[in-house]
Amino acid sequence: MDSFRTIEIKESIFEDNNKDAQKLREELKRQKTFLLNLMSSPGSGKTTFLKAVLPILKERGWKIGVMEADIDSDVDARAISELGIRTIQLHTGGMCHLDADMTRQGLRALGTEELDIVILENVGNLVCPAEFDTGSVKNMMLLSVPEGDDKPLKYPLMFSIVSMVLVTKYDVAPYFDFSLEKVEERVGLLNPMAKVYPISARNGEGLEPFLSWIEEEVERWRNEA
Amino acid sequence: MDSFRTIEIKESIFEDNNKDAQKLREELKRQKTFLLNLMSSPGSGKTTFLKAVLPILKERGWKIGVMEADIDSDVDARAISELGIRTIQLHTGGMCHLDADMTRQGLRALGTEELDIVILENVGNLVCPAEFDTGSVKNMMLLSVPEGDDKPLKYPLMFSIVSMVLVTKYDVAPYFDFSLEKVEERVGLLNPMAKVYPISARNGEGLEPFLSWIEEEVERWRNEA
Repeated sequence: MDSFRTIEIKESIFEDNNKDAQKLREELKRQKTFLLNLMSSPGSGKTTFLKAVLPILKERGWKIGVMEADIDSDVDARAISELGIRTIQLHTGGMCHLDADMTRQGLRALGTEELDIVILENVGNLVCPAEFDTGSVKNMMLLSVPEGDDKPLKYPLMFSIVSMVLVTKYDVAPYFDFSLEKVEERVGLLNPMAKVYPISARNGEGLEPFLSWIEEEVERWRNEA
Repeated sequence: MDSFRTIEIKESIFEDNNKDAQKLREELKRQKTFLLNLMSSPGSGKTTFLKAVLPILKERGWKIGVMEADIDSDVDARAISELGIRTIQLHTGGMCHLDADMTRQGLRALGTEELDIVILENVGNLVCPAEFDTGSVKNMMLLSVPEGDDKPLKYPLMFSIVSMVLVTKYDVAPYFDFSLEKVEERVGLLNPMAKVYPISARNGEGLEPFLSWIEEEVERWRNEA
């Protein structure tokens, strides 16, 4: 028997997503659950990244839940639930993003009581998810080395709405024509506050800046008035 | 001065895209212009692939035009126009796909008279473009090795509507946990007619199956009653 549930997300009926997202953030605040929205292209390594950092965060005492949003399949939820992390698979019925109400459906099915952090692994897509506030406290994204350093030029909205860009698969950088400096420069022009760090989830390298950041952000948000 | 134009595509007013796409195919048939819709995730190597095959097709006597669809930037149109290929940059105004009417706007601005083949490089996205018939004669896609062999499981619609899947960046396969056999098997279950071939556009390897296929498809389509 699978140790995770799969639910079909229904299309939202709310007209004002921004307002609904704000409402969801307030609901989460009351129960002290921090929601992180993780976005990227298909195949940038979201699940591999989570498999690298979740055991460390768990070891450090954080209670974590993960929502895996996909058009189809449950391979990602299976991988995460095997870590002993509370996981739910969300099927979007072909939709290319999640909005706040769809995220709320996932949170209710996951059950967020007692969870410190919930991570939403959004649909693999650099366009649509950038346009919808999910109600998350923070947005972050992965850009993998093989995708190329020109992506901030081509998908500027996504790079504008995230607090952190992790450059994944950095261990294969020698085999690609990829410049971290160009990414830093291009992200900086769009979004000067965004942090950009290279990582290799496969080798477990470069994880600490993310780990420190998420722990600080969760503490800060909890302590805000 | 740039040797290509950039146009802003307007949202379509047609309610029945499938009907409009069929009409566009008939228009293209009358003028004997073959439209190929090229799709993939961001960074799978669509432009690099075109840079490898377009000079060969041009050398073989085909008259080709390219439409580069992007949310923003003109880096791709610049790269293609430098090959001496008639090129236009289409900006989708944030939209994650092109439908038939949007494609028609691009074709009119490009000017298709005397062109044998027009290639639409669709927005980098495995979700939305799969849902809209552009009016193309054939759909094809790229899946890059670094994205992973599980993508047919997660984006089944895209893999179901294409005639050819080129597995790009195959030269870096030794550095990734990637199985071509798994891709063939997973695509085969969704779409038994689809052809799957590995290529390395960077090294110019594996291009011939695509070149033979497109030449045969153009000839067949022209000779159809």
